[in-house]
Amino acid sequence: MTGSADFLLNGKRGSGLDVHDRGLQYGDGLFETLEVYQSRPLFWDLHLQRLTKGCHRLAIPAPDPLVLRQEGDQLIRQCTHGVLKLIVTRGCGGRGYRPPEKPEPTRLLSLHPWPDYSEQLTQNGVRVRFCQTPLGLNPQLAGLKHLNRLEHVLARSEWWQADIHEGLMLNGQGEVIEGTMSNVFYFSNGDLFTPAVDQCGVKGIVRDLIITLARQLSLSVSETSVSPERLLHADEIFLTNSVIGIWPVRQLGDHRFILGENTRRLQAAYQQLWQQQAGYA
Amino acid sequence: MTGSADFLLNGKRGSGLDVHDRGLQYGDGLFETLEVYQSRPLFWDLHLQRLTKGCHRLAIPAPDPLVLRQEGDQLIRQCTHGVLKLIVTRGCGGRGYRPPEKPEPTRLLSLHPWPDYSEQLTQNGVRVRFCQTPLGLNPQLAGLKHLNRLEHVLARSEWWQADIHEGLMLNGQGEVIEGTMSNVFYFSNGDLFTPAVDQCGVKGIVRDLIITLARQLSLSVSETSVSPERLLHADEIFLTNSVIGIWPVRQLGDHRFILGENTRRLQAAYQQLWQQQAGYA
Repeated sequence: MTGSADFLLNGKRGSGLDVHDRGLQYGDGLFETLEVYQSRPLFWDLHLQRLTKGCHRLAIPAPDPLVLRQEGDQLIRQCTHGVLKLIVTRGCGGRGYRPPEKPEPTRLLSLHPWPDYSEQLTQNGVRVRFCQTPLGLNPQLAGLKHLNRLEHVLARSEWWQADIHEGLMLNGQGEVIEGTMSNVFYFSNGDLFTPAVDQCGVKGIVRDLIITLARQLSLSVSETSVSPERLLHADEIFLTNSVIGIWPVRQLGDHRFILGENTRRLQAAYQQLWQQQAGYA
Repeated sequence: MTGSADFLLNGKRGSGLDVHDRGLQYGDGLFETLEVYQSRPLFWDLHLQRLTKGCHRLAIPAPDPLVLRQEGDQLIRQCTHGVLKLIVTRGCGGRGYRPPEKPEPTRLLSLHPWPDYSEQLTQNGVRVRFCQTPLGLNPQLAGLKHLNRLEHVLARSEWWQADIHEGLMLNGQGEVIEGTMSNVFYFSNGDLFTPAVDQCGVKGIVRDLIITLARQLSLSVSETSVSPERLLHADEIFLTNSVIGIWPVRQLGDHRFILGENTRRLQAAYQQLWQQQAGYA
């Protein structure tokens, strides 16, 4: 996601952001990250729904979905494979932290190259570590994909090894919540578990899809408290987000994990959904 | 702090911020807010020291203080009384949350009108409430004046009454930490207390000055855990920041407080410091 990407700021190309925008001043906004495949934004409706819901929770007037869709389509018209990022901020104004009475939100859509993750990561799994940087608890912000991401930046700064693909973040009570850029799931005796994200963490779009798919496959799914110990004793672990899809975990810290049948089944089910979205089905 | 203010972005007037700046994307940066009086930025050295220290903690290369001073001087040359805000971000680049190996920080200095707070607030005290929005715990970010301020925005959104001047924020454990834009102190039996800010909260410049001044006046000062009950049973309460100086609290929730001698003494001592900075002494 570097500076070379194309973007539309409130529908216009090429201009800079008003330096007084509350997105910069306070991180007062939300974002979405979508896969673009053959000029289609995948799972667009789900991302838009989450963005709109997030705007309601922060009392930011939600931008017209049709305008966002139009601007998105304009930006990705010639994109074979890429990442579309949507940012909505509360715009300028207000007095200090106090929001303006009638906010005029800022829309920023930017298109980024598809990351060069190897297909091997999906097939053979990834290596993961635990991060030291904790996630602060805040039920009012929990689940939201908001712009206050300094904790994730610090967590992602903890390692530089190219063969460690993700870091898991814990809350102050030592419960595992999520990866720096992904949600985490594990299987134990055939049942599926994922950390609850009602106190902190992001409620990922693929996370929601996996929960639905798993239930359709008659799996038991629980959103629950997850200790590092429980995770290390899991039968299978995997990570999800809109760009990586499902990555099995082959190593967490010093522990090695098998690439099991349960994860494979979910990968296949998710692949089917993906193909529908990508226009194959 | 509205859009009408004058600013310098990396030394230049009038341009917009690169939309890929990590300050917008992640709140990956820090800020300072200073009083400007007769073209002097007050307590400049202390603000610069905190900013530099904050940059070290976040591994952002600290901008050259001389450049910041030069740009500040340029901006405030004709300012009789105003507020100078400095923002430093990690700049653009990196891969997702992961910072670039050699960050090129962004400097944003902006000048804002002096807020129209009545002198009555300093003399007769302010009315304060408790906020519902909690502060998330994060020792790695505690004390820093960083750009992740969504919690403060939500807390400041909880009330609209013009005669409530500040709201106090608690952490998830129910301990009082700070005001939305200020630090809080109280006197009990002649001793001075203020919440510790090693788990969350901002280590304010005026907070530090008050602690030093109080010790010079041979007062006992403790940075400690503060429950709402302790605060409600205090003899005197006051708030501090670089713009308001010291505001005595005359009402917290339904409890009324006297404007006591101890607070007056600190106001007088701080006023002396202020006059030195403003060039009177």
